Amino acid sequence: MVIDIMNWENNVRKVVPYVAGEQPQNNNVIKLNTNECPYPPAPEVQSVLHGFDSCLLRKYPDPDVSELAAALAKRHGLSKEQVFVGVGSDDVLAMSFLTFFNSDKPILFPDITYSFYDVWADLYKIPYECQPLDENFRIRKEDYQKQNGGIVIANPNAPTGVWEAPSFFEEIVKANPDSVVIVDEAYVDFGGESCVPLIEKYENLLVVQTFSKSRALAGLRIGYAMGSEKLIRYLNDVKFSFNSYTMNGVTIKAGVASVENEEYFRRITAKIMETRENTKKRLAELDFIFPDSKTNFIFASHKHVPAQEIFDALRKNEIYVRHWNKPRIENYLRISVGTDEEMKTVLDFLENYLKEK
Amino acid sequence: MVIDIMNWENNVRKVVPYVAGEQPQNNNVIKLNTNECPYPPAPEVQSVLHGFDSCLLRKYPDPDVSELAAALAKRHGLSKEQVFVGVGSDDVLAMSFLTFFNSDKPILFPDITYSFYDVWADLYKIPYECQPLDENFRIRKEDYQKQNGGIVIANPNAPTGVWEAPSFFEEIVKANPDSVVIVDEAYVDFGGESCVPLIEKYENLLVVQTFSKSRALAGLRIGYAMGSEKLIRYLNDVKFSFNSYTMNGVTIKAGVASVENEEYFRRITAKIMETRENTKKRLAELDFIFPDSKTNFIFASHKHVPAQEIFDALRKNEIYVRHWNKPRIENYLRISVGTDEEMKTVLDFLENYLKEK
Repeated sequence: MVIDIMNWENNVRKVVPYVAGEQPQNNNVIKLNTNECPYPPAPEVQSVLHGFDSCLLRKYPDPDVSELAAALAKRHGLSKEQVFVGVGSDDVLAMSFLTFFNSDKPILFPDITYSFYDVWADLYKIPYECQPLDENFRIRKEDYQKQNGGIVIANPNAPTGVWEAPSFFEEIVKANPDSVVIVDEAYVDFGGESCVPLIEKYENLLVVQTFSKSRALAGLRIGYAMGSEKLIRYLNDVKFSFNSYTMNGVTIKAGVASVENEEYFRRITAKIMETRENTKKRLAELDFIFPDSKTNFIFASHKHVPAQEIFDALRKNEIYVRHWNKPRIENYLRISVGTDEEMKTVLDFLENYLKEK
Repeated sequence: MVIDIMNWENNVRKVVPYVAGEQPQNNNVIKLNTNECPYPPAPEVQSVLHGFDSCLLRKYPDPDVSELAAALAKRHGLSKEQVFVGVGSDDVLAMSFLTFFNSDKPILFPDITYSFYDVWADLYKIPYECQPLDENFRIRKEDYQKQNGGIVIANPNAPTGVWEAPSFFEEIVKANPDSVVIVDEAYVDFGGESCVPLIEKYENLLVVQTFSKSRALAGLRIGYAMGSEKLIRYLNDVKFSFNSYTMNGVTIKAGVASVENEEYFRRITAKIMETRENTKKRLAELDFIFPDSKTNFIFASHKHVPAQEIFDALRKNEIYVRHWNKPRIENYLRISVGTDEEMKTVLDFLENYLKEK
């Protein structure tokens, strides 16, 4: 006789959670494993923290996050009603899956992409079908021209770094008037071109961006979606059915300060792109191959030495990069672009390490 | 022929969102409509804001929120593994509904209670059945001793303010080994007694609290759940399937600072209770009736003047309270307890207003 004394567990939603890159507490580490920005956020963020009156915190924050939505709308040439703000782009994407992907047909996304997509689909019991990238890690747009319950594509894609032009996505959106198409532009600020201008033409296109990479504010948790007023209204209805107040007052003010310093934003993203291009050159000289990256990371494989071995060697020397034991990409490392000094240390180490192989 | 050009909308989750109390921008208002604390948060919160180095924000925050979970665990005599932290108790409760209420049987909660419960149930398509409070707004515990897919009860209840002892809930939990029982203690710090000690005995009991009322940090967004390690693990699995990083670094540090100043916490909650008791006396003298409140609000009805009329009169004089046009409670006003000065203004106004009726 089996005595089931734990019956309450039958009603629990059991999931396999997303595993984020490690956040080591040791500050001596060269941390190139979670695509953080190597530079501090805009200096005005510090001023917001210093100047914030804690007495204001006794009251609830603005549930509409109006000030930040307005600042983002202005920057992207949209109206405030076309912008939805959340606790990082993960929050925005999770909310979007819940809001827009309610069909019995499978949603579509690439086989190699941000590994949270299948986690959200599983969480909400959304059927999905992965579409294989081609042998050059490129998306085949014909794969997204079949029946589906929604589409989500990262552009540039992660962890590959490969970017496609807005015209490519326009074809996909045009072919799918029955679905919401989400373009996840977490890395678009490092040389890509955004699909935001397509929003005016396609009511079913949602573009998601984040403050975590190009604005050096991973620690503050701000992401946002841009789309037609109708899409944003649906998204807000679900958000207001979940948690009225997601963004605290400090975060809202600091976010606005970041958006308003466009010059600083341009300077640090340009610097990261410069470092990335220099890193590409040296990686190629060291016999690495990689798809051309338009992001703040490089997805590289060595012609002779297995990725796992290089990963272990780097790790032993307190250099953290990201490696997945997954089909098709187990021989690649995703290396975030750090400062010039950090990249020099890493590349010098690799040069010596590979010489000895 | 009907041309359906908006087919993507068929896949949208359509919901009727929760409506929070107004957040007027006008500072002249006496704001007694959202149960905020009339005092500032612990002074150490200001020090955290002043001292926070914005450079730290370039990195992701601690996904486990360890420092704050540990501070809360210490305060409540629990282990860190028994505490889950989220973006306000709404986030914690929403996540708990998603995690624990996955049965075909209806979840149970009172007919008069926090009006987010049915919104979350609708959002996640969880069946539910409201159990009527008795004529004194008391919960009838026998209503919670039938088949169900989960139970959620606010204690003290809102908007009634009525509190039941932990022994009352122990009976409910004991009768429901097949369900997770959530006790929402948003208002427990104003004279109630917590169910937290029951956690050690019942693996299926989850107790939720918040920083928004008694810690004067509604604007910061911190809520937390306490339960068996197993419950908390399930909750974390779902959280990590939704958004790895919900709490930003500033919030974590400020939250810890608040928890560590127990003396300030006791002082402001005691002061609010004193003001509440004085307010009760004068309200009774003015012919109001109300269930005995153990919260930072009073749920009052006038013997002769309809609530809507009083609400309108208060509103015209820039005094905001809360009123619901809902069965059984349409003749009640929920009045948050403000400072002595604010309550004097409100009560003096009511005295004059009622004299003229």
